[in-house]
Amino acid sequence: MESIWITDVSPRDGLQNQSKLLSTGDKLALIGLLAAAGLRRVEVTSFVSPTSVPQMADAADLLSLVIQQFPQLQPTVLVPNLRGLERARHAGAGEISVVLAATETMNRKNIKQGLTDATQNCQDTVRAAKSMGMRTRAYLAVAFDCPFEGVTPVPTLIALAQQMQAAQVDEIVIADTIGSATPGRVRDCLSILGQGIPMNQLAMHFHDTRGLATANAWAALEGGIRRFDASTGGLGGCPFAPGAAGNLATEDLVLMAQGSGFQTNIEIGGLLDVIEFAQLKIDRPLGGRSYSWLALQKLKGDLEARLLSQFK
Amino acid sequence: MESIWITDVSPRDGLQNQSKLLSTGDKLALIGLLAAAGLRRVEVTSFVSPTSVPQMADAADLLSLVIQQFPQLQPTVLVPNLRGLERARHAGAGEISVVLAATETMNRKNIKQGLTDATQNCQDTVRAAKSMGMRTRAYLAVAFDCPFEGVTPVPTLIALAQQMQAAQVDEIVIADTIGSATPGRVRDCLSILGQGIPMNQLAMHFHDTRGLATANAWAALEGGIRRFDASTGGLGGCPFAPGAAGNLATEDLVLMAQGSGFQTNIEIGGLLDVIEFAQLKIDRPLGGRSYSWLALQKLKGDLEARLLSQFK
Repeated sequence: MESIWITDVSPRDGLQNQSKLLSTGDKLALIGLLAAAGLRRVEVTSFVSPTSVPQMADAADLLSLVIQQFPQLQPTVLVPNLRGLERARHAGAGEISVVLAATETMNRKNIKQGLTDATQNCQDTVRAAKSMGMRTRAYLAVAFDCPFEGVTPVPTLIALAQQMQAAQVDEIVIADTIGSATPGRVRDCLSILGQGIPMNQLAMHFHDTRGLATANAWAALEGGIRRFDASTGGLGGCPFAPGAAGNLATEDLVLMAQGSGFQTNIEIGGLLDVIEFAQLKIDRPLGGRSYSWLALQKLKGDLEARLLSQFK
Repeated sequence: MESIWITDVSPRDGLQNQSKLLSTGDKLALIGLLAAAGLRRVEVTSFVSPTSVPQMADAADLLSLVIQQFPQLQPTVLVPNLRGLERARHAGAGEISVVLAATETMNRKNIKQGLTDATQNCQDTVRAAKSMGMRTRAYLAVAFDCPFEGVTPVPTLIALAQQMQAAQVDEIVIADTIGSATPGRVRDCLSILGQGIPMNQLAMHFHDTRGLATANAWAALEGGIRRFDASTGGLGGCPFAPGAAGNLATEDLVLMAQGSGFQTNIEIGGLLDVIEFAQLKIDRPLGGRSYSWLALQKLKGDLEARLLSQFK
């Protein structure tokens, strides 16, 4: 049975956009529940400016605690630049991600740098991280469409991916930041990308804005992708991209992949615990496309267990 | 550009399970809106017993009116047997569908006949319809899983499909009645079915119970399927199958297919009109997985139009 690898991004991409601020203890509990559900790769936090993203102000404390308390996890963290990398290293990071938007305007809006400077910054950060012995990931954001520039040409993606390869990056994550991809475009994009970049070096990051995240993930699986970002309960969104909604839900991806013959080593029951906890903490309902059905199955099981125990 | 053909089943599969009874005039309006959105193939009604399915009691009147008022449509109707076929013929039907559940138990629960008798009944009905010059479709229901018997073996599907071919049926519709299919199973099923049955004779009918309907439809498209059932707003469900939920939403399929390079000749804006009308009439919210995003785009457009007109 073939395996897929999921990086659950709910503690970072999921939380950074929420109006409710979670305590470090609550985030630890969330990450502990993810680990209990079988996840091994979790995007824990982001070493960005605490003033621009208050949800991530506890990055260093949180990462240290995660490393101490959950040795079974491979935590990954986002760093915007060399300064963020330094903070992440002090907190014990073994893996970092950088984010490179694929268009000039998106970079300017997001980090006030043009595409050339942003690429250089990401290369420098990846090279420095490699020299510290870290595993590295590079996101190519707005990889399908940019809210400001429209369709992102696939040759642009290839060129940027090659720039990151030149910096010895380990993994390149193709991010459908505004959730505008379609399965046909995913298939076509991967068939071109695959000519220059080994499929096992690529991962996909989808948002479910238009309800096509699972179809897109299936097209990626059929295109040879085995590494995915996902967020339990579909928690998330991108604060800098107008119209971006929640991520591909981990439970949807697991349900689809397991039911299609892939191994994930993730327990859906455990993901339901994560969702219940997270929706209480952020104070709004969560859940991907399969959630109402999954929750009903759990209720049926609970009800049966309760009735049976009553008559024992 | 390749085309796909959608049979919108909202007036039949969509309505038959609703507690609110729609008048013949309301159903005509619904069908008129579907036609206005560009749909050409619509499952109008079912010639079943009015006592078991009161929503379909006006079948003959409705079909006659649809034929008179919407000459651009190719209406299709469901008939359970020769008696239903006779009623459909009197009302002017040019195309009928029969439903054959793929398992013994499902047939017994549904129509109080075993699989052998049910197959014979469908063959007789199709043969009679062909002799009247009608186009014919045969549904193979519970084609992936049966709520009573579990997994439906693909060889069973092939055998039943061949029985229907023997009766000269024009189209065979593989129906995921309880919405339990996964894209991997769809791909595998079609690669086997395709060895015995021409792909252009097959159609797929999905339910979105577990949130995988669009992913399943994409797997079917990649497997060579170009004919789909869908229901605008995801309206629907099967009253005889425990756990069955709404159909694959027409707007989700159109959004995915058009965005992946297929032609549908359907206007999504028109589908939003159908959804608005239908949810008022059945008095509950509707909409597929893309609906919240689509509705937001429409609101933005309306708002812009209103503001612009104000300052003109």
